[in-house]
Parts: sequence; structure tokens; C-alpha cells
Amino acid sequence: MIATALARGCASFLALSICTSAALAAGGPAVSHFTLANGLEVVVIPDRRAPVVTHMVWYRVGSADETAGKTGLAHFLEHLRFKGTEKKPGNLFSQTVATIGGQENAFTSSDYTGYFQRVPKERLKLLMEFESDRMTGLVLTDAVVKPELDVVLEEENSRVANNPGARLSQQVTAALYLNHPYGRPVIGWRNEIEKLTRADALEFYKRFYTPNNAILIVAGDVDAGEVKTMVDETYGKVARTTEIAPRQRPMEPEQVAPRTVTFADPRVTQPSVQRQYLVPSSTTAAPGESEALDVLAHVLGGGQNSRLYRALVLDKKIALSSSAWYQGTALDYGTMGVSGVPKEGVTLAQVEDAIDGILAEVIANGVTDEEMKRSKDRLVADAVYAQDSQSTLARWYGAALTTGLTVEAVKAWPDRIKAVTTTAIKDAAGKWFDKRRSVTGYLIKDAPRPGEKRS
Amino acid sequence: MIATALARGCASFLALSICTSAALAAGGPAVSHFTLANGLEVVVIPDRRAPVVTHMVWYRVGSADETAGKTGLAHFLEHLRFKGTEKKPGNLFSQTVATIGGQENAFTSSDYTGYFQRVPKERLKLLMEFESDRMTGLVLTDAVVKPELDVVLEEENSRVANNPGARLSQQVTAALYLNHPYGRPVIGWRNEIEKLTRADALEFYKRFYTPNNAILIVAGDVDAGEVKTMVDETYGKVARTTEIAPRQRPMEPEQVAPRTVTFADPRVTQPSVQRQYLVPSSTTAAPGESEALDVLAHVLGGGQNSRLYRALVLDKKIALSSSAWYQGTALDYGTMGVSGVPKEGVTLAQVEDAIDGILAEVIANGVTDEEMKRSKDRLVADAVYAQDSQSTLARWYGAALTTGLTVEAVKAWPDRIKAVTTTAIKDAAGKWFDKRRSVTGYLIKDAPRPGEKRS
Repeated sequence: MIATALARGCASFLALSICTSAALAAGGPAVSHFTLANGLEVVVIPDRRAPVVTHMVWYRVGSADETAGKTGLAHFLEHLRFKGTEKKPGNLFSQTVATIGGQENAFTSSDYTGYFQRVPKERLKLLMEFESDRMTGLVLTDAVVKPELDVVLEEENSRVANNPGARLSQQVTAALYLNHPYGRPVIGWRNEIEKLTRADALEFYKRFYTPNNAILIVAGDVDAGEVKTMVDETYGKVARTTEIAPRQRPMEPEQVAPRTVTFADPRVTQPSVQRQYLVPSSTTAAPGESEALDVLAHVLGGGQNSRLYRALVLDKKIALSSSAWYQGTALDYGTMGVSGVPKEGVTLAQVEDAIDGILAEVIANGVTDEEMKRSKDRLVADAVYAQDSQSTLARWYGAALTTGLTVEAVKAWPDRIKAVTTTAIKDAAGKWFDKRRSVTGYLIKDAPRPGEKRS
Repeated sequence: MIATALARGCASFLALSICTSAALAAGGPAVSHFTLANGLEVVVIPDRRAPVVTHMVWYRVGSADETAGKTGLAHFLEHLRFKGTEKKPGNLFSQTVATIGGQENAFTSSDYTGYFQRVPKERLKLLMEFESDRMTGLVLTDAVVKPELDVVLEEENSRVANNPGARLSQQVTAALYLNHPYGRPVIGWRNEIEKLTRADALEFYKRFYTPNNAILIVAGDVDAGEVKTMVDETYGKVARTTEIAPRQRPMEPEQVAPRTVTFADPRVTQPSVQRQYLVPSSTTAAPGESEALDVLAHVLGGGQNSRLYRALVLDKKIALSSSAWYQGTALDYGTMGVSGVPKEGVTLAQVEDAIDGILAEVIANGVTDEEMKRSKDRLVADAVYAQDSQSTLARWYGAALTTGLTVEAVKAWPDRIKAVTTTAIKDAAGKWFDKRRSVTGYLIKDAPRPGEKRS
């Protein structure tokens, strides 16, 4: 059984409190980057601490590339890619990974789909034989497709349908995008998942799964030369099956009207309020702007020294928690979020007012040098610590390269964070905390009755 | 210059206070309906009162059939179809209509695009020669396409950009549909209109403009036999150019969360609140349900005897006006709307609460026999009066046939209205006034400043 992760950019899969765009401290590993004749990009990240390797293949396709009416297809195909090929039928791949003591996983986001394994270094070539084989060799029969659809529907059931917080987030996201496919849930709308077919999956596979739409990332106890040799003998032999057009999605009209969404459910144990603003991503931002948003989010909501936590939890004592985040890893748009969980007896409106007060302060007066320095130090330190994790590093490169950034941009991220100024932060707050570009979501206990006034 | 009407179903083009699905009283004209070998459907509505005819061609294509990213294309093409063909170049068609003292117009909605002329009856065949020629013979050059794009952009500017009420409606509609293309503005999102090209228009034209995707409606001083002869000699000679696939749009997921949208603009002179509920259309409703919604909307909001008007304007004296409507002419979804305009010194929240109170009453207790009878009588009478207008009648048939209804359904509408019961109305109110399937829109004066609390 594959534990599939659904991710919108990095926010939901990095175990950091703040999701950084992509980071590597100065003095990080000597990353190599090359492209094969068939178009496959390869990134090698040496890490000699243990005799293991992390092997990932990322495809530049996600839920935002689906045809309208087929939401969930990118994720469904991710599941189906574990169903075997002519050469390696059934679940031989997964069995092999398990037999050699490895781990595997896969994940789908709006912009990318990734597959990874971690194995002893001696097994790297074996992995490449399997993974390159299923790059274009997938075989799908109704006998495997139909049961897997039930698996995906059950996943939707447990992750979304029975999770009030996830349902609210899905509705907030749908309301945030008036036109762009980022408004779709990565897992898909249930009414459309139910209708996905083998033919849909195969058509999508043939359209997007080709070496010239993929990035191989190998991190671990290897050097670029060894990897290059193995890659030439495996992935290098996969023919490109199709050409890939530039990813041009329908873009947002000017956003002019603040929106709210209220989700009420008897299973809600803890009401909360969140707001998401539509902002630039690392890929689309003006120079320095995305980094300023990273620091701004940390000053506002990164930990117990943050403005929101101090104001709402410590000083006013109206909230159990309050946070802020910037999700900037995306091809087309980023989001800036703030949230708060009221204490017993406090209304969502009181918490929202307090958050608005903090935002108004930052818009008017910016942040202090001390706040900025503390946040920058922390973000850069997180990037350094992250090098302890092979898979985190590999994911940063994968997410960056599938959303329009470069290896150089990933490497330079800590320096760009260090260069952020208080002026840039104040400007970013003033420009992007614009309620007309936002959706505020309320999670409340109990279902509303028809005709009832919203609370 | 063509005065283009943009319509979502009939609501915006019928001059009735309540938009009925489509109506014809018993004893109406003997409508004929036949289909040519090339697939063109023809409807003839005799009306001998004056020697004039109304000639309309409706295509089963509207903004909901556009490819994502190309919003506004159906409407842009409607404009471009006045640019001439090889046989009838330039604006010869419009000039000819003007010379013979005729009128012409065109309109685009989510589900259909229509073209009409009214001329002396002797000129009918001439019209058919022109209109059948441009069914598949349109010629487009950059020299005509580019200036027309400016015309359309200027239309967007005057109808939407400079009209706060229209902007709010556009945003409410976008928020009402999470997945279905009815969420798109018929005129298109401005950022996408700007990029439409000649190639886009021609591709769309070739995909949808063919006799087997059209309905000709002739109303006036003619009989079916005469029309058939003329049609055979004109439209009958147009070859079908493509096959038309069933119209299957992405459908809505379960709607679970009430939404709000606030549009603030310094030009707002009169704040107002509106709410739209996602409900079945005449085409998708269970038997009798759409008719019950028609009567319900009239009881609630049809004129000065309606519940909303009496409660908000006369009794509580908190509103200048209050209304309700059902927009049921659509292939996939209908909408039920309520609105109110507060008196000076009254807040939108007070008006919304009062409307919610009226809705709660109807959900709990239904409507009275007397209210129902008055509304049914009025709806049926409106259908009778409507027969005085050739173009209204022709439009009812056109809108019905392009949204999946039949000639018989149009004819039977008054009888179906008469058959509505108070039980059916109470059931419809209880089922469809469900806030989770709604968006409430607030139009307020002044722009919000970033970070400001919504009012």
C-alpha cells in the first residue's frame, strides 16, 4: 500500500513550521545538474554521511494541468503508476523495494507529481531500472483501475469528507481562485473522481509522462559521475514519447471583492478562522518580493515570538493559537495565510478583528530590525538544518525545478533571505495584505439549517 | 453598430418582473416544428396581426462552452459574425436590414447565442439568404478582428468595469460555481478578452456554427408551408460542417459552505444585499419542481403584494425595495435570488436578517392558497400577454430549445404552473433555500483599505 501525500506546493509536506520557498545554506553540498539527450533533467546531491540514497522522479504535471471536468486525474494516475509494466508486472517494483529494505512514496500537487524511494546505495541502479521502465511503460487494465478508484475515493473520504478543517480549506481555495485551476482540490471533486476511467488515466499518462517532462533527483552517498553512468544505461534509453507545450493556465482576473466561506459541521471540536491572500509565488514575484513575504510571514506567525502569537495568545489571551504562513512554491500564484483559534467564550469575529489589527499595524509601520533579524536567522538556520534530511533537500530541488525555478535559485535562497530589508517587508505588507484579494474562512460547530443566518 | 445583449438565461432579456421559464397560454398559436436533413431545427409561430416577421437563428453554444482560458470568446464571435462573408462582404447584411426598414440584434448567454431581425414579411427570404450564408461562410481578417476587440473591451468597460452592481453580480456568480463554467462572466474576464485572437474566433466558429447545432425561429405573418419552401431554398443548402458532441460541462461538487462577497466602490450610490442559491433549472428539475420555484419566487418577490415587499418596505419600513426571482432557463443549473435595498440609516445586516426571517417563515409554513393563486394567475396572464410580442415568443422558444427543453414543454408551461400545489412550494422552499448552496453579495460605498475589517 502506497501512502500518497497530496501537497499544494511545499506547505503540506515539509515538517517546518514555516514553509520556505526552497533553501540551501551557503556551504551546502556540491549539487550537479545536467540534461540527457532525451530531455530528462538530472540533479545529483552528494551526501556521504550514510550508505543510502534517495531517488526521486518528478514530473512537471499536477492537478492544475488537468482538463476541466477531470479533477483528481493527476492524483489518480499517481496511484495507478504502481500497477506494473509489461517488463515488471504487477507490484514487483514495490515488492522489490520492500525486499531490499527500502522505503517508497509518491505525492501529487497542483504543479507536480513525484515518486521517491530510499534504498541502500548498492541498489540505486536497480531502482533506476524499475523507475525508468515505468516512465513510459505503464500497463493499465480495468482489473487494476477499478479497485484503485475505490482506494482513491476512500482516501478522499478519510482526508477530506470526514475532516471539517480540510473541507473548509478546500472551499476557501475554491473561492480564492475565480478562474485559475489552483482552485481545484488536488484530490479532485468527489463527483468527478467517481467518473474517472482507465482511458482518462492513459490519455493523461501519454500526454505528460515522458523523459522531457521529468526531473530525476538523486541525493546520497554517490557522486555525479557514478550517477551519470547509471542514468545513461537506464533513463538514457527511454525515448521521448511526446513534446510538451508550455504550461499556460487560465489566469486570474483582477481580484476586487473580499470573500468569506463558512463551513459548519457537528464534528468540529475547535472553531477557527483563517484567511488566505492571493500573492505572487517565488516564480512570479518581483525580485526580492517573495523573500520579503517569507520573512514577513515568519515575523507575523513563526512561533511564540511572533506578533500574532504574542498579541492574541499572550497579551489579549483571546486565542489558543495564531499563525501565519507564506506558500510560495508554485508556478503561477502564491498564498499568504493567517489564522487563529479562539479560546472558549471568544468569538471568531473577536479573533479576526485582533488579527486585522496586527496586519494594519504591520502595513502602517512595518516590522522592527530586531524582528526581521530574528526571523531571517531562523529561516536561514532551518535551511541549514534541512540538509540533515536527504529527502527534504531532494524535495526542495524537485519542487523548485517543477515550478519554474533553477538550481541556482535554490542555492542562493539563504543569501536572498539575508538581503531582505525592513523597507521591502513594509512594502510587501502594504501591497499584498489587500482584502480584495482574500478569502476568510470560518470553521464552526453544528450544521446551519436552511435559511439560518450565518454566525 | 450592433446593440449586443448579454444574457444569462432569460432573466436579463425579458421585460417581465419575474422571469418565467418559458410560457404560452392555452389557445396560443399553432406552432410548427420540423428538422431539415442537415440537422437545422425550424420553429414557425404564426402571428397574423401585422405584415411583419421576426427571424431568429439560435446556436447551441454559449460562454459555458468556451475552452478554459478563453472566456468571452462566444460573445466576441457573436460580434465578429457581422463582419461579412465571401458572398456578402463587409456589413452588407446590416446595411440591407437597415435599408428595408428592419431591426436586428444579437445576444450571447451561457448556453446559447442568438441573432435576430424583424422585417416586413416580403423580405423574409432575403434575410434567409443572408443568415444562411453566414452560418458557415464567415470571413475574418485581422483588419476587422482587432478593432472589434476594442469594441468588446469598451463594452466590458461600460457594462461591467464602471458598473458596481454588475461587478458584484459577476463576483457572486464566480463564487456560486465552484467548478461549472456558469461561474464565468458571459462577457469574459477582461484579462482573457484582451488576448482573444482571430484564430481563436475561427476555431470556435468552426466547432459550433453548423446547421446541426442551430435552431431557426420564424414568428409572424407566415405559415409553416411558406416558411418550409423558403428554408429549403436557403438554409437547406448549407452543408453540415462538423458533428456536435453532447454538451457535458464540469458539474458542481456537493455545495457545503455558505459564501459571501463584498464589493465596495466609491461610485455606489445605493448599498444593497443580494443572495443567490444554486437550484435546479427547468431542464434538470424533478417534475413540478421548477414550476414550484417559479410560483415561490413570485409569492416572495413579485411586486408590491409579495411577502418581501410587504414585510421589508411596507411593514418594517427598513427597505426601499426587496425582490426575489427564479432564473430557470439553463441547461445545467438554475438560480433563485433574493435582494434588498436598505433605507437610509438601515444596515445591510438588518435587511439580510429580515429577508432571512421571511425565508424561514416560508420554509416552516409554506405559502397560503390565496398567495399561490394570485401568483399563478399572474404568471399565466404574463404568458398570455407575452403573445403580444413576436420577439418575446420567439425568444421563449429559442431559449427553451437551446437549453434542452421541447416545443411541447413550452406550450404546456401554463398548465404546469396551474398544477403547482402549496405542498410542492413548501417542499421546494425547504429543499432549496439551503444556505450551504448560496452566496450572499454586499454592495457598499467606498473602497476598503488593505487590512480593513469588512463592513
